[in-house]
Amino acid sequence: MAKLNTNFLTLPKSYLFSTISEKVRLFKEKNREAHLLNLGVGDIAFPLAPSIVESLKNSAIEVGEVVHGYGPAEGELFLREKILESEYSGFGFTAEEIFISDGIVRDICDIQDLFDKDAEVGIIDPTYPAYYNASLMAGKKIYKIPCLEENGFIPLPPEKKLDFVYLCTPNNPTGIAMTKPQLEIWVNWALKNQTVLLIDAAYEKFITSTNVCKTIYEIEGAKKVAIEFRSFSKSAGFTGLRLGYTIIPKEAFELNRLWRQRQDIKTNGISYPIQKAGFCSLYGAGKKECEAQVKLYSSHAKKLKKSLQGCGYTVYGGDDSPYVWWKIPNSNSFEFFDTLLHELGLITIPGSGFGPLGEGFIRLSSFISEETCNDAMQRLATLGDKLCAMK
Amino acid sequence: MAKLNTNFLTLPKSYLFSTISEKVRLFKEKNREAHLLNLGVGDIAFPLAPSIVESLKNSAIEVGEVVHGYGPAEGELFLREKILESEYSGFGFTAEEIFISDGIVRDICDIQDLFDKDAEVGIIDPTYPAYYNASLMAGKKIYKIPCLEENGFIPLPPEKKLDFVYLCTPNNPTGIAMTKPQLEIWVNWALKNQTVLLIDAAYEKFITSTNVCKTIYEIEGAKKVAIEFRSFSKSAGFTGLRLGYTIIPKEAFELNRLWRQRQDIKTNGISYPIQKAGFCSLYGAGKKECEAQVKLYSSHAKKLKKSLQGCGYTVYGGDDSPYVWWKIPNSNSFEFFDTLLHELGLITIPGSGFGPLGEGFIRLSSFISEETCNDAMQRLATLGDKLCAMK
Repeated sequence: MAKLNTNFLTLPKSYLFSTISEKVRLFKEKNREAHLLNLGVGDIAFPLAPSIVESLKNSAIEVGEVVHGYGPAEGELFLREKILESEYSGFGFTAEEIFISDGIVRDICDIQDLFDKDAEVGIIDPTYPAYYNASLMAGKKIYKIPCLEENGFIPLPPEKKLDFVYLCTPNNPTGIAMTKPQLEIWVNWALKNQTVLLIDAAYEKFITSTNVCKTIYEIEGAKKVAIEFRSFSKSAGFTGLRLGYTIIPKEAFELNRLWRQRQDIKTNGISYPIQKAGFCSLYGAGKKECEAQVKLYSSHAKKLKKSLQGCGYTVYGGDDSPYVWWKIPNSNSFEFFDTLLHELGLITIPGSGFGPLGEGFIRLSSFISEETCNDAMQRLATLGDKLCAMK
Repeated sequence: MAKLNTNFLTLPKSYLFSTISEKVRLFKEKNREAHLLNLGVGDIAFPLAPSIVESLKNSAIEVGEVVHGYGPAEGELFLREKILESEYSGFGFTAEEIFISDGIVRDICDIQDLFDKDAEVGIIDPTYPAYYNASLMAGKKIYKIPCLEENGFIPLPPEKKLDFVYLCTPNNPTGIAMTKPQLEIWVNWALKNQTVLLIDAAYEKFITSTNVCKTIYEIEGAKKVAIEFRSFSKSAGFTGLRLGYTIIPKEAFELNRLWRQRQDIKTNGISYPIQKAGFCSLYGAGKKECEAQVKLYSSHAKKLKKSLQGCGYTVYGGDDSPYVWWKIPNSNSFEFFDTLLHELGLITIPGSGFGPLGEGFIRLSSFISEETCNDAMQRLATLGDKLCAMK
């Protein structure tokens, strides 16, 4: 028989977000009247901003008049230049160091193609599951880096050498953003060990604290060791349009050249109208409209956090991130997920779904409307009584 | 230092199509007045059809009014069901056996993730370069299957067992489509050896011969061994929009389940407006408009072939394919490419770019306007005299 990839046998039987969907589906089937509030998967709650819509309309007209065929595998130059100007001004990058993607998840998993099959990868626990599962699928050796409450959920570099490490800041799921000194420790460690840092910066636009870096390249030496992944999903509401980009500095080993080779072979570029729409989100009215959406989501995170704290809970994240990481009064987060679903009609994500060290926590997403936010806070305020009644 | 994937060292120094672009760029720089005709890369020559444009406009309005966030990793159900109805009626597939992609090349390369690192792959020579390069990158063992002029460029299964084989029919670059009996030989061989057949059917809509299968699943037993890849790029002009799909029958080993696991982890679906536009190309006016474009391209292939034959050349392909495979009066196809560029202002693709056995041939693409087609035929008619003069 054809030799298949046996690493698939090491994968969890089901994907976290699919498990949650299935649980919700079953609940809905039995409770057709229930008005559920979705604070689970971090998906957008607002339609696309008017300028983005206008751009998509204009592109529709354009592709009916002018031929727009295969674009460059690395993405359109107009978009890469706009990203340089809008996001990385003063960092000395060139357009050749930017690769347009259809969102972070594909690139941040596929980047493993550049590493040896025996390479060892560092993965934070708790973590966004894709890094871990992609590493299992590729048969990489995995070294887990604990991310503990007593350290404020800030991971520390291990004693041992690793080939590459996934870091997500502001973090999904804990909502914690690393400060400049905290990131400097990682960059210095990576420089010493010649380790590649894969920085998932999906939530960069949610940073409000002044001691938090907006990009890893604010740290000296980062260009030699760090790749940064960014997305239009959360900054401009593109979860359904699919657009992101990856910064691979030419100084970072041979990674820029290798990724270009890979992309030239394995892709034919990203959808033209979507790249035009992304361009539109980076300046003028489009930028302002997108920033206003982020601000609204941010305000919901802060409100949710404050509301839970007001009820006497310990809560992390929410300041520089759309995620609130809630220390729950139950050691089993899947059980508590069920309680929140059944008692309050709230869809959330159980912390242990992000790894064993996520146990005891629940992730709340603030990608919700103001109405949902207020409603959720009201329901959460009744939780104490409901929990007492259940005893 | 971080352990990188040393298989990249085995890759050709530059990608065929990039090499051609560079040669053309240099020529243009020196010959600014030259009016070049592009019969090279198989990219579309017409803007998108009116119904597709209308669909894109409507989607733009829709995403401004309704939230369309993350779609399913396997693609929207409305599109998968329409594909079933329009393309695979009567074959007994379900929507779970269709995975929407952003075009063939990514999926047909990434599908290698499902195979063991020591799996052996069969690749036709000459071949579309992506299969070969992706296999090198993944460190797969490669077994080359010759595709010879004396067999009419029809490949035959080897004596030995292989884990998977890439077959492209109608073929790129030779333009030859395999008949039902020819494909039966492959399916029977695959069934006997438990080999997976990866069928690149990008040019299926160009089939006009009645003895050629429209899909591999016309062959009995194919569901057990074959995956079929299709694209909207050439059938609906989507090279710049990016859309395709992959059929993975549930009967084919465990491949359907494995690919679903992979896609759930590594992707967040395909752009919603693009899927809507693809939907629109599969019925009613949209379908008719796209079919008309294919018919035009097809007519150019037939005209180019006839014209070259009229000049006394041996020519393959062009009947069920947009590609004409021209046996050239020079054993070095890169040299002849230069001659065509410098003497006639024609951009083509040298056969040896597709593998050693492509030497002695040139691929002409019929994705051109009628004007370009007529102009190219006139220029080609003068070739004999130019070659004499050069001697």
